[in-house]
Amino acid sequence: MNKIILLIHCKDRSNIIASVTNFIAKEGGNIVYIDQHVDREQDIFFMRLESEFVIDTFTTNGFKESFKNTLANEFEMKWRIYSSKIKPKMALFISKYDHCLYDLLGRYNSGELNLEIPFIISNHLDLKPIADNFKIPFHHIPVTKETKSDAENKQLELLESHNIDFIVLARYMQIVSGKLISKYLNKIINIHHSFLPAFVGAKPYHSAYKRGVKIIGATSHYVTEELDAGPIIEQDVAHVSHTHSIQDLIAKGRDLEKIVLANAVKLHTDRKVMVYNNKTVIFS
Amino acid sequence: MNKIILLIHCKDRSNIIASVTNFIAKEGGNIVYIDQHVDREQDIFFMRLESEFVIDTFTTNGFKESFKNTLANEFEMKWRIYSSKIKPKMALFISKYDHCLYDLLGRYNSGELNLEIPFIISNHLDLKPIADNFKIPFHHIPVTKETKSDAENKQLELLESHNIDFIVLARYMQIVSGKLISKYLNKIINIHHSFLPAFVGAKPYHSAYKRGVKIIGATSHYVTEELDAGPIIEQDVAHVSHTHSIQDLIAKGRDLEKIVLANAVKLHTDRKVMVYNNKTVIFS
Amino acid sequence: MNKIILLIHCKDRSNIIASVTNFIAKEGGNIVYIDQHVDREQDIFFMRLESEFVIDTFTTNGFKESFKNTLANEFEMKWRIYSSKIKPKMALFISKYDHCLYDLLGRYNSGELNLEIPFIISNHLDLKPIADNFKIPFHHIPVTKETKSDAENKQLELLESHNIDFIVLARYMQIVSGKLISKYLNKIINIHHSFLPAFVGAKPYHSAYKRGVKIIGATSHYVTEELDAGPIIEQDVAHVSHTHSIQDLIAKGRDLEKIVLANAVKLHTDRKVMVYNNKTVIFS
Amino acid sequence: MNKIILLIHCKDRSNIIASVTNFIAKEGGNIVYIDQHVDREQDIFFMRLESEFVIDTFTTNGFKESFKNTLANEFEMKWRIYSSKIKPKMALFISKYDHCLYDLLGRYNSGELNLEIPFIISNHLDLKPIADNFKIPFHHIPVTKETKSDAENKQLELLESHNIDFIVLARYMQIVSGKLISKYLNKIINIHHSFLPAFVGAKPYHSAYKRGVKIIGATSHYVTEELDAGPIIEQDVAHVSHTHSIQDLIAKGRDLEKIVLANAVKLHTDRKVMVYNNKTVIFS
Repeated sequence: MNKIILLIHCKDRSNIIASVTNFIAKEGGNIVYIDQHVDREQDIFFMRLESEFVIDTFTTNGFKESFKNTLANEFEMKWRIYSSKIKPKMALFISKYDHCLYDLLGRYNSGELNLEIPFIISNHLDLKPIADNFKIPFHHIPVTKETKSDAENKQLELLESHNIDFIVLARYMQIVSGKLISKYLNKIINIHHSFLPAFVGAKPYHSAYKRGVKIIGATSHYVTEELDAGPIIEQDVAHVSHTHSIQDLIAKGRDLEKIVLANAVKLHTDRKVMVYNNKTVIFS
Repeated sequence: MNKIILLIHCKDRSNIIASVTNFIAKEGGNIVYIDQHVDREQDIFFMRLESEFVIDTFTTNGFKESFKNTLANEFEMKWRIYSSKIKPKMALFISKYDHCLYDLLGRYNSGELNLEIPFIISNHLDLKPIADNFKIPFHHIPVTKETKSDAENKQLELLESHNIDFIVLARYMQIVSGKLISKYLNKIINIHHSFLPAFVGAKPYHSAYKRGVKIIGATSHYVTEELDAGPIIEQDVAHVSHTHSIQDLIAKGRDLEKIVLANAVKLHTDRKVMVYNNKTVIFS
Repeated sequence: MNKIILLIHCKDRSNIIASVTNFIAKEGGNIVYIDQHVDREQDIFFMRLESEFVIDTFTTNGFKESFKNTLANEFEMKWRIYSSKIKPKMALFISKYDHCLYDLLGRYNSGELNLEIPFIISNHLDLKPIADNFKIPFHHIPVTKETKSDAENKQLELLESHNIDFIVLARYMQIVSGKLISKYLNKIINIHHSFLPAFVGAKPYHSAYKRGVKIIGATSHYVTEELDAGPIIEQDVAHVSHTHSIQDLIAKGRDLEKIVLANAVKLHTDRKVMVYNNKTVIFS
Repeated sequence: MNKIILLIHCKDRSNIIASVTNFIAKEGGNIVYIDQHVDREQDIFFMRLESEFVIDTFTTNGFKESFKNTLANEFEMKWRIYSSKIKPKMALFISKYDHCLYDLLGRYNSGELNLEIPFIISNHLDLKPIADNFKIPFHHIPVTKETKSDAENKQLELLESHNIDFIVLARYMQIVSGKLISKYLNKIINIHHSFLPAFVGAKPYHSAYKRGVKIIGATSHYVTEELDAGPIIEQDVAHVSHTHSIQDLIAKGRDLEKIVLANAVKLHTDRKVMVYNNKTVIFS
């Protein structure tokens, strides 16, 4: 059986839902999930739909062609279609912190994540033993001011030669340049260790401690050119008190970071995230 | 403009979504919201749909008739249609605790709740001054073992003469009998002061204290014959510690109870709750 | 029986705890609660202690005198002593939003709050009927650019003539001036409708919506000259999604605001808050 | 420098705090942390105290002797003293689920946990490769009805020969017998996959799904003879909805389980847990 996931957004108009569901029915599909959202401020319509096709002659490419020439054209839709059979390929970028790495690899090994990890890139060698334990190829690409451009070219080469679908920065401690971002727009997931927009930039736990907040957080977002300002996918928080030192905040924060990042990765690979106007629509 | 809310459930089959959206389109409606759920264990399909009709000749009754004779019949649906113009009428049952009462009446006065409160019933006189302040008619119907049946008849008379749509037990300290429950099935909302199914019955905070739990909760549910076992609408919890006395748990719990109950009332009046198999589907 | 609450902070040194507990014992007191904290970054020692005195000759003033001349002097302590008998007097400042007002007055009426409310001040007349219902004197002091200084003098006069201990800004929509702040330093509690330091200033729910955050919050803090930058007493948050409009955020936020403000008021009146370095130590 | 942690409980009386702090001062100690609690229902006093000793002649054993013969005797205290230098030894019992195992070993490797893991015991071979990766000795002790008693003897032998201080059941799917429990009373930490006391016993996620709860939880507790009824150390919860299948609940629950269990282990090894009356006092 074939199953597709269809993501659509376009200007809101009458009868979009009926038109799309009709179209699917005519193509021989049975809709098993439908969710939609209208941004009333911007007048934009969003839809996520899962449909099963039992007919022998169905192909995703055929469906795409047909959809493009009819509905997509008529409603001036932006759209994507995914086959549920294909596992997305994720590249992991890391530096020296291991908690998100352990968490993601543990889930990966247990079969919890619907994805493949062709390789890990790190600007340090510290975590290579963990990659080795989990038998994931590890590429050491150091980054200095002088080598930044070269390093990025090496990264791009690896990404392209492995047909990487999306990148996860699992506490990768380097700023990703515009070149990479534009090639993987809304496909680079970062975990920031604060409840954004509070405490943008470096050392957010230190800033949180200084401000005396009673809540700390973690935010997973797509990377854009402006630092820590990309579309937010997932956030979570934990209560803290005056008894917590900066070290305590960092330790408590690690638990937030790993759960929030893992959830964002799952939402992304389940094709449940749509991005518009630097915000996300999450069909969960 | 006319706007209807349509709630459907039936055995899951192919093409329900397309059939319904098609039907709405043919009747001249524009679907502004659609949400659906399939219970894969029971193979039941659920849908909530909001549609606007701009045509002059539209009537809710006409739509009902047409829907009944076609789709509802074909798919053997259980269904309800509401006009968004009509405010549901809520009867408040209270006893001696005032926190949920203050909270609901405060929201009511501020226009936050989309409902009418024709009257309050209490088995005690203690809270009459609050009803008076808010200018809601207050009926004192005492309940003793001997008068329980009489009291219930008085309650029913009031409910029926005011065309009450649903009842909220805002810490009403009497057990509602089967007669009332069957007349208002899935229309009586209770707030229980524990995270059900833990601590069913009386004095849950005392039991929570004794068991040494680190979390207390509150649960809003529809009332069924079995005590505290009806379909759960909303739950929330708060962290507690050994430093909290029973009195502290009760105080902390009050804040949970009032928020959880208010949320359940809003979900109910927004027609976002469907009940099946003693569970709820919440389209929020 | 006499019960005092003693709050101390001073530079951290050896034997402070033993010295203080010894002193209390010599004065005939039995310590029923002790909590302490050391800020290791600043090397500051904080202590909160409750002690009961059964001896006939005990007076709070006598104890104060003795403490001042011995320990407080020796350790260069900053300290305060409260008798648990005396209820603090709270002035409520409001404008047009009623949810925090209803919540606080509901709790006040139920006996949940250990305080007195001699009066309410508002720059608008809208909420006077609520004050009247709860039989709290209501003073209408309008504030315009031209009358701001006059208005403040009227406020100060009322505060002083009633021996007000602390002020609660229950969504009071005016900026309090430095004169009032310096007279009631760490005695003016504000509720801000965001998880500070995110979204300082006006319209935080609009900013939260625009940024696409997945969590909104509320923060109760002491008012300082810098807007929304004072010591944080209490924060809480709620999860939101793309389905929430700005109006939905505002509605959800109201529930956060009222609970967070009420908790801050309780912590303050229970003398559980110490302020240092623009942060709070909360002995809860 | 020497640092001890002292845990005390006894019947509540006047002047316990002053007596203890005095005693520490006389022994040459500087108290760096003190926390206490009185259970007013049972009239029991609890205290946790950390003290540093700079004097050359200090020994933990000497202090113990002195304390036993004076204060402990006078107040009829139950007490324990720990040197902060000694890392407790933890035995890990596992079966087939790997999420808690990965989480604990990840933390252990990163130096986050103040303990040693001399070995892992499992009744299955499935997770041996993970133990091998992390280079922890793995003992396969199968358990069947017939071999249960033998298996337990092997376990006890291992525990005793390695001087194990406490046991963590990281989703160990066998019921531990009374013999082991009595030897390690309040020293066996279990993680149960529900918010106890709801859903005691097997398959709690299935029960939660059937009951239609809107919140699931996890509970870490000390093991007692009565199943899932021991003193609760830590609990946490997550919101769920009708959209979650049983498999979704299990997946979401895994994240709760691993965080809750890790927190319980940290509290235990930091000597912050006292047990009384089948409840815990947590000095966190």
